[in-house]
Amino acid sequence: MRSPPTGRPAPTATPEVFARYRARLDRALREAVEGPDLPLYTMARYQMGWVDRAGNPVAGDRGKTVRPTLCLLMCEALGGNPDHALPAAAGLELLHNFSLVHDDIMDQDHSRRGRPTVWDVWGVPQAIDAGDLMHVLATLSALRGPPGPDGPLLAAEAVAVLARGCSRMTEGQHLDIAFESRDDVTLDQYLGMVDGKTAALIGTAFELGAVFAGNNRDVRSACREYGRTLGTAFQIRDDILGIWGEPETTGKPVGSDLMRRKKTWPVVHAWHHAAPADQARLHTMFQSRACAPDVADATAILERAGSREAAEAQVSQYQEASDAWLRILPVSAWGRAQLVEVARYIAQRAK
Amino acid sequence: MRSPPTGRPAPTATPEVFARYRARLDRALREAVEGPDLPLYTMARYQMGWVDRAGNPVAGDRGKTVRPTLCLLMCEALGGNPDHALPAAAGLELLHNFSLVHDDIMDQDHSRRGRPTVWDVWGVPQAIDAGDLMHVLATLSALRGPPGPDGPLLAAEAVAVLARGCSRMTEGQHLDIAFESRDDVTLDQYLGMVDGKTAALIGTAFELGAVFAGNNRDVRSACREYGRTLGTAFQIRDDILGIWGEPETTGKPVGSDLMRRKKTWPVVHAWHHAAPADQARLHTMFQSRACAPDVADATAILERAGSREAAEAQVSQYQEASDAWLRILPVSAWGRAQLVEVARYIAQRAK
Repeated sequence: MRSPPTGRPAPTATPEVFARYRARLDRALREAVEGPDLPLYTMARYQMGWVDRAGNPVAGDRGKTVRPTLCLLMCEALGGNPDHALPAAAGLELLHNFSLVHDDIMDQDHSRRGRPTVWDVWGVPQAIDAGDLMHVLATLSALRGPPGPDGPLLAAEAVAVLARGCSRMTEGQHLDIAFESRDDVTLDQYLGMVDGKTAALIGTAFELGAVFAGNNRDVRSACREYGRTLGTAFQIRDDILGIWGEPETTGKPVGSDLMRRKKTWPVVHAWHHAAPADQARLHTMFQSRACAPDVADATAILERAGSREAAEAQVSQYQEASDAWLRILPVSAWGRAQLVEVARYIAQRAK
Repeated sequence: MRSPPTGRPAPTATPEVFARYRARLDRALREAVEGPDLPLYTMARYQMGWVDRAGNPVAGDRGKTVRPTLCLLMCEALGGNPDHALPAAAGLELLHNFSLVHDDIMDQDHSRRGRPTVWDVWGVPQAIDAGDLMHVLATLSALRGPPGPDGPLLAAEAVAVLARGCSRMTEGQHLDIAFESRDDVTLDQYLGMVDGKTAALIGTAFELGAVFAGNNRDVRSACREYGRTLGTAFQIRDDILGIWGEPETTGKPVGSDLMRRKKTWPVVHAWHHAAPADQARLHTMFQSRACAPDVADATAILERAGSREAAEAQVSQYQEASDAWLRILPVSAWGRAQLVEVARYIAQRAK
């Protein structure tokens, strides 16, 4: 077993605040996925981890529900009633899951959270359609809005925030696909892609929380920036775990992202910073489709190039930038403590 | 050249009301597809028929824009200002086009309106993503809403109407895919599928018009039913044209839907009404993947089963049902005349 490099923080456990909203969020999500008795809705529930392919309830891995939890926490931290944000938070989780269903088709991934992906079970056409359904169910959930005379307006605002986040997400996804066939991507371009693909919806999560806490545009915008910086840290941590994560913790094989030739932050870093011979070897490994990349060799190249430490430093930079945004947010002392813990988890988690 | 059967109405020209809204609608659509300088937006504009694959403007076939035209016409017929409905009408056309982009992937269609499909040009992953972008741009456009204090509420209402129509559309799409591998579909089941896949968005078009004309729930609901019946007539006409349409008018080869083994209304009818030997031949033709179906043979089977006349009669039935809905709508005399002409065009068109 490799020992972690000096300075790497210990893995942190899932913060307790995730349990705080779980039951309510689960109810809101199940309400959002109600519909006629069609296998199409079974696919959506399967993706959410509630049922098996036959539609029978299962107690499986339902994902971390990071985004809606961040939304509800921010709402409460800003003095709002998180119950008012529930339908929008459920919509956000559905948006994320629709993107996963489509993402798995694009990447031809057969497995997610230990089960076959939706397209692997039902085929590509039905899976595209199931993703489209989940996309529109997200909108329909957010439209429910809170009770009271301001409800419809808040719902419309929430739908707008979700839609803007989703359009950024599709832009990031577009770049991610385009980068697959490119060998000259810079770290800046990579971070621009991450800002859309991953960070936008984390920004959306916090911004939505501020909408339902009744905050003005300045606070909403600061919340969004807070989320964007934290979301970038989240993705680079994901990239690190995809290469150096412990299989028994992540549930994925060693170097799984290298095996799949994913151009993650550490790889893009090594492209530009490894010694010339190593750079050439790495490029060849990522171009050749003849045989699987040598994971141990690629990992060694990345480590020689200092890409692991550089990625850790980049995570810390984004985490610090997000801390700066948090400092100016008008959150309660309880909320601040929770957000600090959640941010630490997101940036430093071990799975 | 085959002569048309007795009783078939003469092809009707595109009603003038389509020209009435074209320029305004085009502006609203272009505004809805504005975004950062990414090929992803080029894909959306390509699908809309505005640019070639390199992003250069073209003057090509932009489709009939049936749905937004119906929306704007209904709004004006009910005494509303169609300009107020423009962003939602543009959203409706984008929804329709997002579904076409995904549909072409599902059906593996290489060509649409005389050009390669989006996935054919940019590949499946980018095309899935481009469809997702167009879906969310539809929501963002509808959220713009009309000016005035009621604007945001009307926009929220429009987004809800669009989302409900879109969820019905995904349900219909789901059934359509499921039916591909089934040989026992009844005409009722087929019509249930059409009600979602095609008719729902036509219902949405008229309902949206009523929303922006300030009508109450009863009128909105009657408008939706009017559209659903007309939308079903529209689809069965499409099915007839896909088999018996004149190639020089439709731009598609003779019997193109039979060639692609599409289970359209006339085929489902013949399955249940052809003589036993013909039924068996038809089933074999639709099951075998070894060679292309014999279009002339299949057409002859359908004609012997009376499926063409039955389809024409079914169109007339739905057209009459839609006329009954139109009679109870509080539309102006001008509006009624326009709607009658449009309904006739939709149900009896030759392309």
